[in-house]
Amino acid sequence: MEPQAIDATFYSQIDIQIRFNDLDAYRHVNNNSYFSYYDLGKDEYFREVFPSDFRLQTVVPIIANIKADFFSPIFYGDPIVMQTRCSRLGNKSFTLQQRAVNTKTGRVVCQSETIMVFFDVATQKSAQIPEQYRKNIIAFERGQLD
Amino acid sequence: MEPQAIDATFYSQIDIQIRFNDLDAYRHVNNNSYFSYYDLGKDEYFREVFPSDFRLQTVVPIIANIKADFFSPIFYGDPIVMQTRCSRLGNKSFTLQQRAVNTKTGRVVCQSETIMVFFDVATQKSAQIPEQYRKNIIAFERGQLD
Amino acid sequence: MEPQAIDATFYSQIDIQIRFNDLDAYRHVNNNSYFSYYDLGKDEYFREVFPSDFRLQTVVPIIANIKADFFSPIFYGDPIVMQTRCSRLGNKSFTLQQRAVNTKTGRVVCQSETIMVFFDVATQKSAQIPEQYRKNIIAFERGQLD
Amino acid sequence: MEPQAIDATFYSQIDIQIRFNDLDAYRHVNNNSYFSYYDLGKDEYFREVFPSDFRLQTVVPIIANIKADFFSPIFYGDPIVMQTRCSRLGNKSFTLQQRAVNTKTGRVVCQSETIMVFFDVATQKSAQIPEQYRKNIIAFERGQLD
Repeated sequence: MEPQAIDATFYSQIDIQIRFNDLDAYRHVNNNSYFSYYDLGKDEYFREVFPSDFRLQTVVPIIANIKADFFSPIFYGDPIVMQTRCSRLGNKSFTLQQRAVNTKTGRVVCQSETIMVFFDVATQKSAQIPEQYRKNIIAFERGQLD
Repeated sequence: MEPQAIDATFYSQIDIQIRFNDLDAYRHVNNNSYFSYYDLGKDEYFREVFPSDFRLQTVVPIIANIKADFFSPIFYGDPIVMQTRCSRLGNKSFTLQQRAVNTKTGRVVCQSETIMVFFDVATQKSAQIPEQYRKNIIAFERGQLD
Repeated sequence: MEPQAIDATFYSQIDIQIRFNDLDAYRHVNNNSYFSYYDLGKDEYFREVFPSDFRLQTVVPIIANIKADFFSPIFYGDPIVMQTRCSRLGNKSFTLQQRAVNTKTGRVVCQSETIMVFFDVATQKSAQIPEQYRKNIIAFERGQLD
Repeated sequence: MEPQAIDATFYSQIDIQIRFNDLDAYRHVNNNSYFSYYDLGKDEYFREVFPSDFRLQTVVPIIANIKADFFSPIFYGDPIVMQTRCSRLGNKSFTLQQRAVNTKTGRVVCQSETIMVFFDVATQKSAQIPEQYRKNIIAFERGQLD
């Protein structure tokens, strides 16, 4: 009944630089800051599979939905890596799975699943995932997509 | 297939003071800041149903899981109210539903569902929801619980 | 030798909505968050003296320098108002003085002085303060400028 | 009349991990985020000269005053290092100078000067800088103190 840690291979990861003001009065990282860690992971992933100027294109990925599980607190100084993978590739949307690992304990401290939709800034409507992006993701994930 | 806006009565709400640094390079409120808005809503709700010193007790509510839908962007100056209700009351956990409404357009711009668990700081284990808290929530929600 | 609280009349002020994640592990508002409070005060001031679309003009005010004194901690729930005034009006720059007051104790908890420069986005150089802005500030401050 | 970049040797520095939500609607790093970068630099400095548990002692350093100059914008992806040095060591207070350098352009993009005071948590009064801390700072700065 407890949510299980995602079990898959993650080919993208980034070390997180924790800031003292990420903490809150409970002396551990505030729930809000986890989402900026997920963002760092997403940006690292996008560097791998999208062109460097993808944010300036007319068709950009936006977050439609995010689900996050908080397993254990993160403390100041904890060595945290954020791992990101694409688990599903649709026509207009895709799903990113992410998990943060404390590399000292090996423990998954939190995880999330984000549905991202490609959005056409000009028409203000959802749009097809650009073909090259799709190919890059498939190649990067080495057949691990659902 | 699109997620639907939560349809229920919310007895707790708070006006959100948007900060300029909540925005990001897309000129609208960054996804991360939505979670600090949800927190403001939760705190307002807790003021209604928990004693004022609930954070200093040995048994405190913590976030186990959060799901959030992003429907439309929030711009600087938008009049946003965050509404919060308890939709489920278990033995050790409860669920909060939240939605942010742009009061000028009447539109629900985002919504979330949070599972909170009571946690005993001394034993570091989950714990029963204190009886008085439970009663207060039931009274506050006027029978609207699932 | 201790810095003195600014002694002047402030005609602009705004209530600050403190967020739980403004706090840090010392259980009071983190130094960083003070600057977002100063920003809320500046924006309120700009609403008084600048046109509502001033951020979209080619000549915009930017922060060149800020000095801030931290007098006493701010705790979660403290009733804080941020007060802002223009203390100096140059050709291309002006100075804003700000102080945050705990309205329950009457105490000034922090204060700052910001030098803002008008900047021409097109030429990427400093620029004259627009004449209408200047007149509005003078009128708003009722002769209190240095 | 323009403020000059601090000219001194800095023996402590740290690479800054810029987050996308550090940016604001002007598409560069928001003024507020600079202060979290200064904090990262301070923490790195403290790791060099203070014991690792200095935050848990009864006598801790707190920020009394900070002055910051903003020279040029920081963009997403800029390679930024924050450099920190102690420039003055008093009985109860000391001064930290900091500057952020874009390592691609070699340009100092911002700088600050912070007065920190040692504070006794028990008596709630300022206190002497612990002797060992003082020695460590002197050794670390190799005679460069004012």
